[in-house]
Amino acid sequence: MIVGFIGFGEVSSTISNILSRNGIQTVTVVKGRSEKTNIRAIKSDVQIIDSYDALVKGSDVVISANSPANALNIAKKVSKLMDDGIYIDLNNVSPDTTLKMSQLFEKPQETLPKIEEKHSFFKKQEDVDMRNMFVDGAIIGKVSNDPTTILFSGQRSGDLAILNNYGLNIMIVSNKPGDVSTLKTLRSLYTKGVSAVLMEAYEASKEIGMVDQLFEILSLTEGETFEEKSKSRIRNSYKNSKRKVEEMDEALEFLDKISPKGKKNFMTKAARDKFNDVK
Amino acid sequence: MIVGFIGFGEVSSTISNILSRNGIQTVTVVKGRSEKTNIRAIKSDVQIIDSYDALVKGSDVVISANSPANALNIAKKVSKLMDDGIYIDLNNVSPDTTLKMSQLFEKPQETLPKIEEKHSFFKKQEDVDMRNMFVDGAIIGKVSNDPTTILFSGQRSGDLAILNNYGLNIMIVSNKPGDVSTLKTLRSLYTKGVSAVLMEAYEASKEIGMVDQLFEILSLTEGETFEEKSKSRIRNSYKNSKRKVEEMDEALEFLDKISPKGKKNFMTKAARDKFNDVK
Repeated sequence: MIVGFIGFGEVSSTISNILSRNGIQTVTVVKGRSEKTNIRAIKSDVQIIDSYDALVKGSDVVISANSPANALNIAKKVSKLMDDGIYIDLNNVSPDTTLKMSQLFEKPQETLPKIEEKHSFFKKQEDVDMRNMFVDGAIIGKVSNDPTTILFSGQRSGDLAILNNYGLNIMIVSNKPGDVSTLKTLRSLYTKGVSAVLMEAYEASKEIGMVDQLFEILSLTEGETFEEKSKSRIRNSYKNSKRKVEEMDEALEFLDKISPKGKKNFMTKAARDKFNDVK
Repeated sequence: MIVGFIGFGEVSSTISNILSRNGIQTVTVVKGRSEKTNIRAIKSDVQIIDSYDALVKGSDVVISANSPANALNIAKKVSKLMDDGIYIDLNNVSPDTTLKMSQLFEKPQETLPKIEEKHSFFKKQEDVDMRNMFVDGAIIGKVSNDPTTILFSGQRSGDLAILNNYGLNIMIVSNKPGDVSTLKTLRSLYTKGVSAVLMEAYEASKEIGMVDQLFEILSLTEGETFEEKSKSRIRNSYKNSKRKVEEMDEALEFLDKISPKGKKNFMTKAARDKFNDVK
């Protein structure tokens, strides 16, 4: 199996290193990218090539890990080049954008090359009318966690379970593209809501000089790792508040779509306003 | 040492049972209380007496564990009867009400009986002009946890460290009455905020049939006990939403007092509205 990476930031390089340590060939293109990315690629075992066309056509799995803003454009370009294999989007995009990308990779069975003409690592799916090469993925927790846990959903996500043999912890959520993106959004309602709650409790305790005492008594019930974990959440929230506002705006859009009419999503709205207040 | 309980609900009976198992005599009055309370007292080792006067005058420590609404009235009555020992308020009251209660128990040193006249379990504090018998306490986590952890603050809270020898886990926060109540309020900003965030994430996941998946992926990063703990928080929030609205109103009042002018406490306000929305 050959895995090609479009984008070679922290996510790509971590996954690439795990895979190549476990005997899988990985490739990427870093031409025109930042010096930092170039150095990261040189220091990895990844094969550096010149052409995105070659990367897409030569890989069994193509992984896109860039920025949410670029995700759709990259998917458009790749979908025109790709006629086999699996395309994984690992960018932190909304369920809506994920579905748009997925449609790009959905092709009637007959338009795809016959199994004799091309030898892919994965078997051709004969039992579907429409074939969809798109899989949406999400890393849960830090990419550097050992093992790195990745969720997948999409028609061919089951084929990716094989990566469990190559150092990753793969969880197949469903064969419906977009489910992982939806789950990730649901998860962020909790994680970012908690961050915003922590910020407010922290600010109040600071105001009256009781930060240490607050963390001490919370640790009694929330566990030993609570203080470290929470302080890291708080630091991260102040640092990345601008991005978090955007993510909460997307989450609110999602909630508006799925909520019964008239339902107010107080906590998510407040978390958005909280992040916006410090940005 | 003799410990007297005013109110014999779950909190009092649990503490009373721990203390009497460890050799401390406990007393209470259940006359006029509910049948349930009477039965609870009969089944305990607590000594049941008829008179609150006798309870207050015969105990070295008086513990009030009733409802927040009754706390101040009980403190008023007891403060008129008490001239020695320690009065502990374990009701879930605001920092403001706690300070009001504390003032009732503050008396100039000279008005208190001389050490020869009364033999208290605790030594008389000779080095203070004003003596304050009031201690505010808070149980952290469930009262049934083993060991039960209780925080104390107040001039005489240090004397209560002796209860560590009798089956309780005592933490002395400071000698300033009200500090425990303040800490408890700060803590509730976090715990109730998280409950409200959980409710919203849960409701959204229910809307699209992804409750199980949401808890599964959250457990990956939040720990094994997350699902059970969170579901219990959610159930409890729907069940006690009315009380939680009142508690959040008190917390907001507190935040208004300590916050810089113009600061908006988005998350606490939203949690209040969230609980109010289901009540």
